[in-house]
Amino acid sequence: MALNAALQALLDGFRAGRTTALARAISLVEDEREGFQDFLHEVLRAGPRTARVGFTGPPGAGKSSIVATLATAYRTRGEDVGVVAVDPTSPFSGGALLGDRIRMNELATDAGIFIRSMATRGSLGGLATTTKEVMDLMDAFGFARVLVESVGVGQTELEITAAADTVVVVLVPESGDAIQAMKAGLMEIADLFVVNKADRPGAQRLARDIELMLHLREGPSSRRRPAALAAGHHGPARSGSAAPAVPVATDSGSPGAPAAWAIPVLETVASEGKGIDALVAALDAHRAWAEASGALARKRRERLDRRVREAVARSLAIEVWRRRGGDAILQEVLPALETGELTPYQAAARIVRALLG
Amino acid sequence: MALNAALQALLDGFRAGRTTALARAISLVEDEREGFQDFLHEVLRAGPRTARVGFTGPPGAGKSSIVATLATAYRTRGEDVGVVAVDPTSPFSGGALLGDRIRMNELATDAGIFIRSMATRGSLGGLATTTKEVMDLMDAFGFARVLVESVGVGQTELEITAAADTVVVVLVPESGDAIQAMKAGLMEIADLFVVNKADRPGAQRLARDIELMLHLREGPSSRRRPAALAAGHHGPARSGSAAPAVPVATDSGSPGAPAAWAIPVLETVASEGKGIDALVAALDAHRAWAEASGALARKRRERLDRRVREAVARSLAIEVWRRRGGDAILQEVLPALETGELTPYQAAARIVRALLG
Repeated sequence: MALNAALQALLDGFRAGRTTALARAISLVEDEREGFQDFLHEVLRAGPRTARVGFTGPPGAGKSSIVATLATAYRTRGEDVGVVAVDPTSPFSGGALLGDRIRMNELATDAGIFIRSMATRGSLGGLATTTKEVMDLMDAFGFARVLVESVGVGQTELEITAAADTVVVVLVPESGDAIQAMKAGLMEIADLFVVNKADRPGAQRLARDIELMLHLREGPSSRRRPAALAAGHHGPARSGSAAPAVPVATDSGSPGAPAAWAIPVLETVASEGKGIDALVAALDAHRAWAEASGALARKRRERLDRRVREAVARSLAIEVWRRRGGDAILQEVLPALETGELTPYQAAARIVRALLG
Repeated sequence: MALNAALQALLDGFRAGRTTALARAISLVEDEREGFQDFLHEVLRAGPRTARVGFTGPPGAGKSSIVATLATAYRTRGEDVGVVAVDPTSPFSGGALLGDRIRMNELATDAGIFIRSMATRGSLGGLATTTKEVMDLMDAFGFARVLVESVGVGQTELEITAAADTVVVVLVPESGDAIQAMKAGLMEIADLFVVNKADRPGAQRLARDIELMLHLREGPSSRRRPAALAAGHHGPARSGSAAPAVPVATDSGSPGAPAAWAIPVLETVASEGKGIDALVAALDAHRAWAEASGALARKRRERLDRRVREAVARSLAIEVWRRRGGDAILQEVLPALETGELTPYQAAARIVRALLG
């Protein structure tokens, strides 16, 4: 799988750490231009190294503010940060209010921070696949942290967030209650909860409700928490609004191998930087736990499995529509479809037969 | 494509109008059980007949209340109604507040209303594909109206809504401003806007802002409104909060062939039934316009095109993973993927080769 000269030059620039090369590589992948899979192949050889953190929650919860403040905190530690925004209402994507956008633009002038917002309309590979590949590119480029912001309502968007090593669910009192968060599938994917705008009425109640629901979920049906935890070994995951405690991984019995993660509920006022230090610490703690417990290795394995499935689906789509004349057959049968002579399933069968012979 | 005896019996029950048969047919399609495509083939022969209306908007906008009130209004006209709920926070799906759920349950005891909520996790075909097939089943079953409720944030969910003949975007003052709605892609798909909870502060301002943005969009770049409209032929689409006007399609010049639809902005208080008559009238007007102008025929053609593409993707997925040993190959190469010896793209290429020979 040798790259052509242009892609080899791009790869050289990428490996030399040029952000222009990163930007062009992302466009290559987004547009699925000839050779993008070979390029990804070269780039992915090193395997995942960066800490990928996903932020999700309803529009207006302050995800972008938290990501911006967190990125700044990492920068003061000397770490480079990549940001991927999938939420179309995010200021990173040009949405939201003017003041937010100005703040994000200031962030964007820092050479140690690279921000990319994803188009909301998917390509053949789909938004989820492409976004994960952009995360891969940022990983391979050498960012210490990759932060992904995605709105936590749609199926595709939840899938993107769930592809991160650590998932932070951001809620605010105005965004609905804990029960709505659970129904929207946010409880299933959260490694950390953040109640943002914690100075507003209802914030502490929301935090308490989430903690209560996390306790309720510790039954035998829980997939995230093993039996040892359900039996009462719950760690000190409670947060105080004054100084949120850093979560401590609970021990399953065998020394040095913490098996369960007690999901913390933190409180922040991101616009004022309040609670961000505790969030940084909680993210570090989750990372350490995930590495020690094998949870990170398991997550990466699941990610590889899914990645192969997505790559197969995309290859087949390219093959059937672009290379084997699927489009031509479809145009040909469209009139028969309209009159009802032919159903979509018959037309599809014909196209599949043309591919598989 | 003869059905087996069990499916033929199901089809007979379905054609006889038994709702138990409809429910079983939906499960057949959702679970992609053997023969589901043949069953759909039989059922789809008649072609689309029902009026499909999609409702979208952020969680908490009152989509379910509007759907419930509207369904009741149709029932008083003697029309049967099918409801598909995709929003996981919808009371139809068991989410939201207790009071809402009770109201929906009352609705569910009416034999002329059939409610189905979709699982948020997709199958091989994906949530969007399956939901559209459930709409097809309800159409073929003979409901006069099929109402689809989906949360308007995720990509998949927007796609579901856009598959309806008429798309209603529901907003409330609390759900963010008109600019956020535009950024979230809601302006692109709306045939009607409803500002619900119109008795709350900010409702009229939101309605005015949406109308302003609709006017701004009437430039040459607009795909929804032809040049004649941009030149000033805007119809009387304004709504008064006291008695919202029914929208009138503007005429492009040739008598009897209205080419442009002036998107109305209605105001409702669904919980009190206010503004629902105007909504019923606006939906009828849009239907009449879509039929007369050819817009409905065009939408159905696009739907068929997309349906074939989705059916091809699903057939290929079933073929490669279930029938041609893709899963076995993937399990075999997973260790090499983990060590980085093999990339997902190489593994995918190997699986695709096994399929295509």
